[in-house]
Amino acid sequence: MSTSNRYAFPDLNSLPQDLKDRILEVQEKSGFIPNVFLMLARRPEEWRAFMAYHDTLMLKETGSLTKGDREMIVTATSAANNCLYCVVAHGALLRIYEKKPLVADQVAVNYLKADISPRQKAMLDYAMKVCLRAHEVNDDDFVKLHEHGFDDEDIWDIGTITAFFGMSNRIANFTNMMPNPEFYLLARVPREPKKN
Amino acid sequence: MSTSNRYAFPDLNSLPQDLKDRILEVQEKSGFIPNVFLMLARRPEEWRAFMAYHDTLMLKETGSLTKGDREMIVTATSAANNCLYCVVAHGALLRIYEKKPLVADQVAVNYLKADISPRQKAMLDYAMKVCLRAHEVNDDDFVKLHEHGFDDEDIWDIGTITAFFGMSNRIANFTNMMPNPEFYLLARVPREPKKN
Amino acid sequence: MSTSNRYAFPDLNSLPQDLKDRILEVQEKSGFIPNVFLMLARRPEEWRAFMAYHDTLMLKETGSLTKGDREMIVTATSAANNCLYCVVAHGALLRIYEKKPLVADQVAVNYLKADISPRQKAMLDYAMKVCLRAHEVNDDDFVKLHEHGFDDEDIWDIGTITAFFGMSNRIANFTNMMPNPEFYLLARVPREPKKN
Amino acid sequence: MSTSNRYAFPDLNSLPQDLKDRILEVQEKSGFIPNVFLMLARRPEEWRAFMAYHDTLMLKETGSLTKGDREMIVTATSAANNCLYCVVAHGALLRIYEKKPLVADQVAVNYLKADISPRQKAMLDYAMKVCLRAHEVNDDDFVKLHEHGFDDEDIWDIGTITAFFGMSNRIANFTNMMPNPEFYLLARVPREPKKN
Amino acid sequence: MSTSNRYAFPDLNSLPQDLKDRILEVQEKSGFIPNVFLMLARRPEEWRAFMAYHDTLMLKETGSLTKGDREMIVTATSAANNCLYCVVAHGALLRIYEKKPLVADQVAVNYLKADISPRQKAMLDYAMKVCLRAHEVNDDDFVKLHEHGFDDEDIWDIGTITAFFGMSNRIANFTNMMPNPEFYLLARVPREPKKN
Amino acid sequence: MSTSNRYAFPDLNSLPQDLKDRILEVQEKSGFIPNVFLMLARRPEEWRAFMAYHDTLMLKETGSLTKGDREMIVTATSAANNCLYCVVAHGALLRIYEKKPLVADQVAVNYLKADISPRQKAMLDYAMKVCLRAHEVNDDDFVKLHEHGFDDEDIWDIGTITAFFGMSNRIANFTNMMPNPEFYLLARVPREPKKN
Repeated sequence: MSTSNRYAFPDLNSLPQDLKDRILEVQEKSGFIPNVFLMLARRPEEWRAFMAYHDTLMLKETGSLTKGDREMIVTATSAANNCLYCVVAHGALLRIYEKKPLVADQVAVNYLKADISPRQKAMLDYAMKVCLRAHEVNDDDFVKLHEHGFDDEDIWDIGTITAFFGMSNRIANFTNMMPNPEFYLLARVPREPKKN
Repeated sequence: MSTSNRYAFPDLNSLPQDLKDRILEVQEKSGFIPNVFLMLARRPEEWRAFMAYHDTLMLKETGSLTKGDREMIVTATSAANNCLYCVVAHGALLRIYEKKPLVADQVAVNYLKADISPRQKAMLDYAMKVCLRAHEVNDDDFVKLHEHGFDDEDIWDIGTITAFFGMSNRIANFTNMMPNPEFYLLARVPREPKKN
Repeated sequence: MSTSNRYAFPDLNSLPQDLKDRILEVQEKSGFIPNVFLMLARRPEEWRAFMAYHDTLMLKETGSLTKGDREMIVTATSAANNCLYCVVAHGALLRIYEKKPLVADQVAVNYLKADISPRQKAMLDYAMKVCLRAHEVNDDDFVKLHEHGFDDEDIWDIGTITAFFGMSNRIANFTNMMPNPEFYLLARVPREPKKN
Repeated sequence: MSTSNRYAFPDLNSLPQDLKDRILEVQEKSGFIPNVFLMLARRPEEWRAFMAYHDTLMLKETGSLTKGDREMIVTATSAANNCLYCVVAHGALLRIYEKKPLVADQVAVNYLKADISPRQKAMLDYAMKVCLRAHEVNDDDFVKLHEHGFDDEDIWDIGTITAFFGMSNRIANFTNMMPNPEFYLLARVPREPKKN
Repeated sequence: MSTSNRYAFPDLNSLPQDLKDRILEVQEKSGFIPNVFLMLARRPEEWRAFMAYHDTLMLKETGSLTKGDREMIVTATSAANNCLYCVVAHGALLRIYEKKPLVADQVAVNYLKADISPRQKAMLDYAMKVCLRAHEVNDDDFVKLHEHGFDDEDIWDIGTITAFFGMSNRIANFTNMMPNPEFYLLARVPREPKKN
Repeated sequence: MSTSNRYAFPDLNSLPQDLKDRILEVQEKSGFIPNVFLMLARRPEEWRAFMAYHDTLMLKETGSLTKGDREMIVTATSAANNCLYCVVAHGALLRIYEKKPLVADQVAVNYLKADISPRQKAMLDYAMKVCLRAHEVNDDDFVKLHEHGFDDEDIWDIGTITAFFGMSNRIANFTNMMPNPEFYLLARVPREPKKN
């Protein structure tokens, strides 16, 4: 059906230098340019704010959330919001960071059956509450998360990542942003150890 | 979390001959035994009824639904019912029959964004209505499907496949039936043509 | 409104002998042919699978579920799925087996107010979970049911009956299958004891 | 389970004369005292306001709604609100006024399948909108009802009856008001014509 | 959009004397005639029943519910039913009785964040259950309320006020009843103490 | 109940200079510091990204959305997400920009009854779809908005503002961010014209 992006991508060469640099860097690293970089680049100010917010949440070095935890939150949130782009793209990152080829599909379909730790399950329970009925979050939610070793800063991270990707999911959905084909297969086959 | 099947599988050798024969045939063909065959085999009568129903719906040679269409209905239904086993197992079959490595993930997350035909989109609209609010099905639904070339027997097929796998999804969910790892990767990489 | 069956019933004489035999047997016993037998008979293979599944679930002699329990599950499930045929037909059976002329209407409108035992209430709580959100079934559900004396095989029965009639409800709804008028009044008046 | 009324009924002789008179009149006419008369009589002022509202809506002689239409609205509304008392009691009245022994069960389970006129179907569509999402009622709803011959006063009647019994349903539910056993069987068997 | 009342108001002088008297009394006291008095006055019998019910619930002198508690229930219920008239009109009364200029907006948007007592929070939890799923009310709800000092008569009050204004909300919504502009600002600024 | 912010605010003097400058500027202009500036300032990187995103969406000078339109989207979105902080704070801005003292309460309770233009109603219909079921946005939505004079860039604005404040709503909800008391009364009384 509607499988093309609803807004035209800008020409890479027409973009401001900072966008262009980052995009080429991503392309260099990944071998392709994830569509989110091109879609949002239509509006450089929005692109910059989005990437800055993304980076501070997803690349930060403090707190107890691993990169795998964070991508797990994004995948579960994106599934709850039926966002194809984000489930496929962040599901790929989740497989990479967790080193579990099956976990992304499990989290996307039903995280209650996924091969994750009880701590991660509690994390996703809270993320789903923020995603679907944040107005009901209360002190009991914090108590449950503390029991699993999350402190208040971790809980802020879980909540804000959920909220940020809820925004991202909505933008991807109304712009009909399609996942790059490359994402679908990433990290589904365990990498062979490099030989000397 | 709960990643093991909730009911123990029977010993293959303890099964009645007809079950054993079919299961070995499947194993021969697929290289593994899909868990649904073992889970249901705990109760041979139920196993036989389930397989007979499955086969008459999914293997029938009449009507305009292709095998790809049928697996697409199953994948969409199973996603709506958050059934991990069926999304993964039938998503694999969907990829095989449609020869599209990406289509199963698309249908599972949001079929409205999937790379499918308008006819298939109308088919899934109806399947979702049967899945989620069958009591509201009315003559208008039949008119819309007729416009896409489906006749009343095809509509029976779509509705019954949706209903049958809604049953299957619920059984898989309460038994905590886990998809065999082999399913996840099937047909994600286009097969190379066989060489002589 | 739409009070006629959407698909024409086959001529009884045109049916395969096994269908015809069973149908005549039911007619003999009940005094009429329940429409489900005729509607599904359009497709003998599906009819056979449906009846085989039905019989193994509903007529089995093992486990702790009584026939009244089973029809209670069917009535509650069918009400949750707004299936007129099944509420009316199985409500009649529920009245017969429970020997309570009022119980079917109670279970159909709000089983939480019905004149049933705490054990049956726990059974229906679980059935409603399988019916409406099977993907959330977890170990706690099993613990609660064990406390009421249900073992894992009984829980399988409750879940599978719920799932099977969820299928049946959807088929009845999309085919617009109407309950035979005879069902509505069955067992509403307590039978007088037979005199010698 | 909770099959007894949650609040004790007052002693009939302790009631104010106007309540007592009306209750005895109802008993005389029906052969029993519907529980709603006794439950609300605990508070005579509320009883009087409730009955006055009820009577002006349900006994009025103007407008195009028949008594059968009105009881049909009540039955559909009460089913949507899962109110056992009102479905059973007003379902009985619906059977009486429509002279159709099957219609109440049909309307209670799924009015879209009930043997009612297109005009009554439009009436119930509107009643369900008032019942479930009154804040979305708009001019289009009025246009649709006008097409079926309802004028603005009829639409007021439909809406207010729906709203009034939505109140009644909630009160019956939190007080655990049980339908009198007599209601269940009323008008299920067509009355034989009286002989001279 | 649709910001005019859908039904014409009757001429004040054409009304029966008892309606006219009460309406003029309200106008004298409030400085304006709340639209609900004029809208319902189109039908004097309904007006009288509505006002009688309203008065016995909202003006009664017994029980532990304060006038502020009652208006708080009305405001929360009306917000849950998206009723503009009642949120604005009863929000004003809530501000007046609670002497808290901010509380009405808080209760209308999310009572879980409102500056209210734990007792009032428990009261609103129950009111929301009666409002949204009264058929699930059970003995546990009564236990929780007893713990906060509410007795069974108070619980009757909470439930009936919720039910009555659920009716009122639906009528206001389908008649498109608009709040008088005067309500919006009432009691938002703390009154200065009167000087001698 | 929980009426205090869940995370402590940082000391203003401890903040980076750019945050401090902006915050003092806001305080200078508004007479108080909106709590969102202090809550997010706990994490300067997030604060900067949030404000940059906010400013580019809400302060941009291009496109056909007025400032009133944008605050109307925010108010409706925040009401749908039950976010007390944002309904109160942005409701105040909506009153200021639209110069309509009543419009914010109307939009917050039920925008379908609000005194807004048909163009604004279409705008909010779309915003609500992005807010609540963005995965169903399709070409028809764009057609409807075009008919009201919105171009694709305006539609991007509506969608992104809705998505951004959906994030903001979730953060405000899980941090229990309370609106400053000053917001509640802003622009409720029409300003008197300044005298010379």
